[in-house]
Amino acid sequence: GGCGAVAEARVLVINTGGTIGMVPQPEGLAPEANMLAGALKKIPILHDAAYAEETNLYSRLHLGDDTLVLPISRQNKRIIYTILELSPLLDSSNMTPAEWDKIGSLLEIYYEKYDGFVILHGTDTMAYTASALSFMCENLGKTIVLTGSQVPIYELRNDGRANLLGSLLFAGQFVIPEVCLYFHNKLYRGNRVTKVDAESFNAFSSPNLPSLATAEVDIIINWETVWRANTTKKFAIHKMNFDQHVGLLRIFPGITAEAVKGFLQSPIKGIVLETYGSGNAPNNCPALLEELQKATERGVVILNCTQCLRGSVSLVYETGKTLMDAGVIPGGDMTPEAALTKLAYVLSKPGTLAEKREMVKENLRGEMTVVPIGTQITLKDS
Amino acid sequence: GGCGAVAEARVLVINTGGTIGMVPQPEGLAPEANMLAGALKKIPILHDAAYAEETNLYSRLHLGDDTLVLPISRQNKRIIYTILELSPLLDSSNMTPAEWDKIGSLLEIYYEKYDGFVILHGTDTMAYTASALSFMCENLGKTIVLTGSQVPIYELRNDGRANLLGSLLFAGQFVIPEVCLYFHNKLYRGNRVTKVDAESFNAFSSPNLPSLATAEVDIIINWETVWRANTTKKFAIHKMNFDQHVGLLRIFPGITAEAVKGFLQSPIKGIVLETYGSGNAPNNCPALLEELQKATERGVVILNCTQCLRGSVSLVYETGKTLMDAGVIPGGDMTPEAALTKLAYVLSKPGTLAEKREMVKENLRGEMTVVPIGTQITLKDS
Amino acid sequence: GGCGAVAEARVLVINTGGTIGMVPQPEGLAPEANMLAGALKKIPILHDAAYAEETNLYSRLHLGDDTLVLPISRQNKRIIYTILELSPLLDSSNMTPAEWDKIGSLLEIYYEKYDGFVILHGTDTMAYTASALSFMCENLGKTIVLTGSQVPIYELRNDGRANLLGSLLFAGQFVIPEVCLYFHNKLYRGNRVTKVDAESFNAFSSPNLPSLATAEVDIIINWETVWRANTTKKFAIHKMNFDQHVGLLRIFPGITAEAVKGFLQSPIKGIVLETYGSGNAPNNCPALLEELQKATERGVVILNCTQCLRGSVSLVYETGKTLMDAGVIPGGDMTPEAALTKLAYVLSKPGTLAEKREMVKENLRGEMTVVPIGTQITLKDS
Amino acid sequence: GGCGAVAEARVLVINTGGTIGMVPQPEGLAPEANMLAGALKKIPILHDAAYAEETNLYSRLHLGDDTLVLPISRQNKRIIYTILELSPLLDSSNMTPAEWDKIGSLLEIYYEKYDGFVILHGTDTMAYTASALSFMCENLGKTIVLTGSQVPIYELRNDGRANLLGSLLFAGQFVIPEVCLYFHNKLYRGNRVTKVDAESFNAFSSPNLPSLATAEVDIIINWETVWRANTTKKFAIHKMNFDQHVGLLRIFPGITAEAVKGFLQSPIKGIVLETYGSGNAPNNCPALLEELQKATERGVVILNCTQCLRGSVSLVYETGKTLMDAGVIPGGDMTPEAALTKLAYVLSKPGTLAEKREMVKENLRGEMTVVPIGTQITLKDS
Repeated sequence: GGCGAVAEARVLVINTGGTIGMVPQPEGLAPEANMLAGALKKIPILHDAAYAEETNLYSRLHLGDDTLVLPISRQNKRIIYTILELSPLLDSSNMTPAEWDKIGSLLEIYYEKYDGFVILHGTDTMAYTASALSFMCENLGKTIVLTGSQVPIYELRNDGRANLLGSLLFAGQFVIPEVCLYFHNKLYRGNRVTKVDAESFNAFSSPNLPSLATAEVDIIINWETVWRANTTKKFAIHKMNFDQHVGLLRIFPGITAEAVKGFLQSPIKGIVLETYGSGNAPNNCPALLEELQKATERGVVILNCTQCLRGSVSLVYETGKTLMDAGVIPGGDMTPEAALTKLAYVLSKPGTLAEKREMVKENLRGEMTVVPIGTQITLKDS
Repeated sequence: GGCGAVAEARVLVINTGGTIGMVPQPEGLAPEANMLAGALKKIPILHDAAYAEETNLYSRLHLGDDTLVLPISRQNKRIIYTILELSPLLDSSNMTPAEWDKIGSLLEIYYEKYDGFVILHGTDTMAYTASALSFMCENLGKTIVLTGSQVPIYELRNDGRANLLGSLLFAGQFVIPEVCLYFHNKLYRGNRVTKVDAESFNAFSSPNLPSLATAEVDIIINWETVWRANTTKKFAIHKMNFDQHVGLLRIFPGITAEAVKGFLQSPIKGIVLETYGSGNAPNNCPALLEELQKATERGVVILNCTQCLRGSVSLVYETGKTLMDAGVIPGGDMTPEAALTKLAYVLSKPGTLAEKREMVKENLRGEMTVVPIGTQITLKDS
Repeated sequence: GGCGAVAEARVLVINTGGTIGMVPQPEGLAPEANMLAGALKKIPILHDAAYAEETNLYSRLHLGDDTLVLPISRQNKRIIYTILELSPLLDSSNMTPAEWDKIGSLLEIYYEKYDGFVILHGTDTMAYTASALSFMCENLGKTIVLTGSQVPIYELRNDGRANLLGSLLFAGQFVIPEVCLYFHNKLYRGNRVTKVDAESFNAFSSPNLPSLATAEVDIIINWETVWRANTTKKFAIHKMNFDQHVGLLRIFPGITAEAVKGFLQSPIKGIVLETYGSGNAPNNCPALLEELQKATERGVVILNCTQCLRGSVSLVYETGKTLMDAGVIPGGDMTPEAALTKLAYVLSKPGTLAEKREMVKENLRGEMTVVPIGTQITLKDS
Repeated sequence: GGCGAVAEARVLVINTGGTIGMVPQPEGLAPEANMLAGALKKIPILHDAAYAEETNLYSRLHLGDDTLVLPISRQNKRIIYTILELSPLLDSSNMTPAEWDKIGSLLEIYYEKYDGFVILHGTDTMAYTASALSFMCENLGKTIVLTGSQVPIYELRNDGRANLLGSLLFAGQFVIPEVCLYFHNKLYRGNRVTKVDAESFNAFSSPNLPSLATAEVDIIINWETVWRANTTKKFAIHKMNFDQHVGLLRIFPGITAEAVKGFLQSPIKGIVLETYGSGNAPNNCPALLEELQKATERGVVILNCTQCLRGSVSLVYETGKTLMDAGVIPGGDMTPEAALTKLAYVLSKPGTLAEKREMVKENLRGEMTVVPIGTQITLKDS
């Protein structure tokens, strides 16, 4: 609550870098430290200086220079947001699991203090980070939104202002207890998206799940799609201490058993196998299957995901039976980004290999569509 | 020409296998040999027995049982097509470069005898085969169309009949001197497509080039998009004798220099590096860049393509400059399928390494969009 | 029942005419009577002669020449369908409410005898007929599917075979107790569609409601969208004895009070007013509003629908308040086709004018989206 | 040019009203006069106060308070724009042809003084006004862009800022000598669009012509689509002195000859007949056709357009031959908005009825796609 009728909400913005805050440098665009909060203060839709002054916002709440306040929203709320920068700011192609743990630490530290969280991030690896955080955040009860832009917020025409504004409105006003990604007027489940367009404002797609919400003339939330953990446990961050021994292996015509063997060699512990169509791989090449089998036997977890943008590696049907016989786990309709980070998450949890293999098959954070086995859900007899 | 006013065209259908001709077997669907021609003869839109009899088609043209004739088309043509089966018929996930060479041999042998060619193929690797053949076919002057289906032609509801019929109409009636792919009423350039949907009839997408033609109420051909080689040279098939020493390496957060090193080890000769966004990779990890540089120095050709469905690795801008400094070649807007098979093609051609590196950069078959360097094409001053 | 394990279902196909059954005539395409059943018998996917013979189908069930049987479906059913032709067959631009009553009579007569119904119809007015029938069918408990095609079933490449086959499969196998429209692999609610493309196989759109089902690789039914009347009353057809005194009036800049007056003159009883955007009309032209008010006062029912393909004339907000003050009823997100036929239906029912005005506002057959008044459904406070 | 290296361009913004500038009033949103320029000055991306001061912009160019200057563009231009308001400001549902003439007068007066023009307008009738102006502007050589928004520029989240900014950048930097409409990152030909969505930021569609340009990460102009009049004549505005005796008549099943007669009665001079599909109307209702024929015989110009969003009333084929026999002119793929305003334009030009009928058939401003008669453009024989 604030002073009077208007509710105030507090949002923490964790700035990791990315195009949204980049400025021209001699060798191209690059992020610059300690600059964003000051710049945003000059943008009226992102900071209401008059309100801050009239309500003694800074002294009343003991806020520093890194905090801003949005103009009042249609929902009659004041969103007060504080920008916290990672150091150094990163081009998102330089993002690594170590940064995921850093972000996780910040979420853990500030979880109780804020109503919601926005993470500014480059678009190139945003889907990987969103997926990773979705697993790392256990028993999440608040809204976390990753966003960024294709054009820096300092340029005349840019998508950064609208993306940041929309993310703040979702994080500060609605309880969507997921790690989300907001881009181009759509809020997605973070572990369902993939970057599909390097040159459009509409850069992300959620091929196997509708968006959680849209923010056009009105904000419309598809509440029935929002994921809710059946738990009352306390929020916790699982640090991966990411051992980086997972990888992606894409099948293609002519791939050799030797190449697969090379890729699967120690110290690899988990592999996303990007197969054809509904999870198919060559089944007439015993040497190749043998390499996969040998790997699973020595404890490598292999998860079967499709190369196709849309579609699923069935948990039910015979497709890819040969791979299942070799110990490969069907990955349903997970994106490669979700599958890779799920593997890393599960492998870093305690437990036996058998327990981990079971955990990989479970739907942990809404990252896959679960079709009940043994039910024929699409048909109904007359 | 035929007997009288109706022009007859001859099309060779090379059946490699795939879902289109599969029948249920105890362990799932599988292709069955020597069955397709007989089955198609019973489908009136795919065989006009009355015409064959009335015009003494079989004796007049010395045709065997494996030849059928379509009912007359709107363009007043009779398309006579002969089915030639590879042995064994293959599930397309078992397709290898050896089969590409087999198909190439058949195209070479029958090139003069037929007006056009249709290749029946499973959808899983169809984009790979279409890309490979586009490079292998040098100085192509006739239409080659790959097609297949998501549901076997023997099922009640299927997309195989329409896909085969449309392909025959394009191959038999129009000179589109490309290796094309026809699916769900659209004709695409073969080296521009990728399979994007494992569960829909609309399975393919050509993300960076509009389709060459559509066949709905009318057949509409975008002639300005059709590729025409500036050559009068004779058609030839370049056999790859595919040495299988190419591969795909997808960058992801946390990929290690060791993993890259392992993957790039001998006998690899060419790599498609699937990078982020417009061709970005970590530039703050010297060990990783060093591995790439060492590989290019010992003669490995590395081609930079984006993980995004749509978009381009620029040939012009600074993006990915670090990778270019390491000897990596920007791949423009090529699909991974086109990039991989282009590498295999170029590496199997005679020439020095420098010549091959130049060839990889060229637009050989319309597989990439060429933006003239030094021109700012999108803006025009008032 | 049937002989043995295979369930047989009976579907009545009412052929009203339209492109699907047209043949070339000297002055263009035109429907030809008594030809369709014979032609379909030659198409193997639409008639399984062997099954008919082996099971003595015709004598066993006392069927005539106008009955066919589909090959067995994936759902292990045999759909036996009987074609009943209207006389004369009509180009759908000649369809009138008199034909709607004819179709209604047939549905009434044969309702108990068949498991489902398919209505062959031209595409031009199919959305009007589907809407009209949706209201005329009271307490519907079986599946009725309208379909047709953009290209005659007698042409080489056509969409008629697939549209008819899919419609038969829905009508014969699933209880979707609605008047549906099936086209280009999608099953829609009939009173939600509009023809949006005169030149594509994908001719219809349901702008304000998702499709009820798709039939691609699998048949997927969105059961939560299917409309179910809360009633156990007996099925009945309400004949409109259509007095044809309804009409559509589209607002445009410069429309005069005189033009509106002319259009609203007796004997008109109901009008769909096609307004701008969310239901807006000029509010600074008293003469025009006066004409609308005078009309409503003398008992004309005026229904406010938007000119936009997508969108809604709000039942809740202030928009179009001036029109509401003039007695105009907000039409929600109804299509013009649904609104027009709903007016005709309601006006032909017994009751006072006040009762009819209330009935127009109700959601009778899922033709409009009902947003509960007083509830803010899209937002949820944290 | 300005002071030094930066080119300055001058754009006139004609504010007619509409949602973009609306503020909450007791009875809902309404436009407020003399407020926009002041408000825009507070938005940094729409006004660069520092530049204005540093370069003595106001005194140097003798500008008043109604003029603003954009920050420098990527194309290194400074766009100086002056806002001129119509009085009163109008909700666009109150727009009439009288306002079109007012806007035309302003364009005529200021044509030489400015490099380009932006017209702020409500979305409800924007497509009508864009169409009308496209005809009224004869020999246009500068860029005119209509824009507006779905949400007022004074709201926190709105599409007005981006729409205005993009429009200014097109009007000030590129010579696209058309009346355009810019919305949601796309620049359309104004007489090709229609409002299709009442509730989305993406409110307009150009169903039968691709957009002229997109403005996402880069501004991409499809120069081959831009319309260029083959003329060196001087720009002129044709005032319609709009006699308002045109109208839209939508055909529907059951429409009576009486209703048509009523609608066509004097003083009507021109009618857009909204027919089915490719231009079809009932041909078995002689009374109805007779009314149309009588009207054309007494000089009413009747233009045949389709009810379908996409598609064309053929100029070539037999479709709608009955209507052509009755004197109805095929309208190709014109939108209803373009057809209606074209009629008003042509009818207000001098000339005989025969000349006007010919003029209606011509492609005057790119409003219709011209398919050469007698050429089969889509097929090419091998």
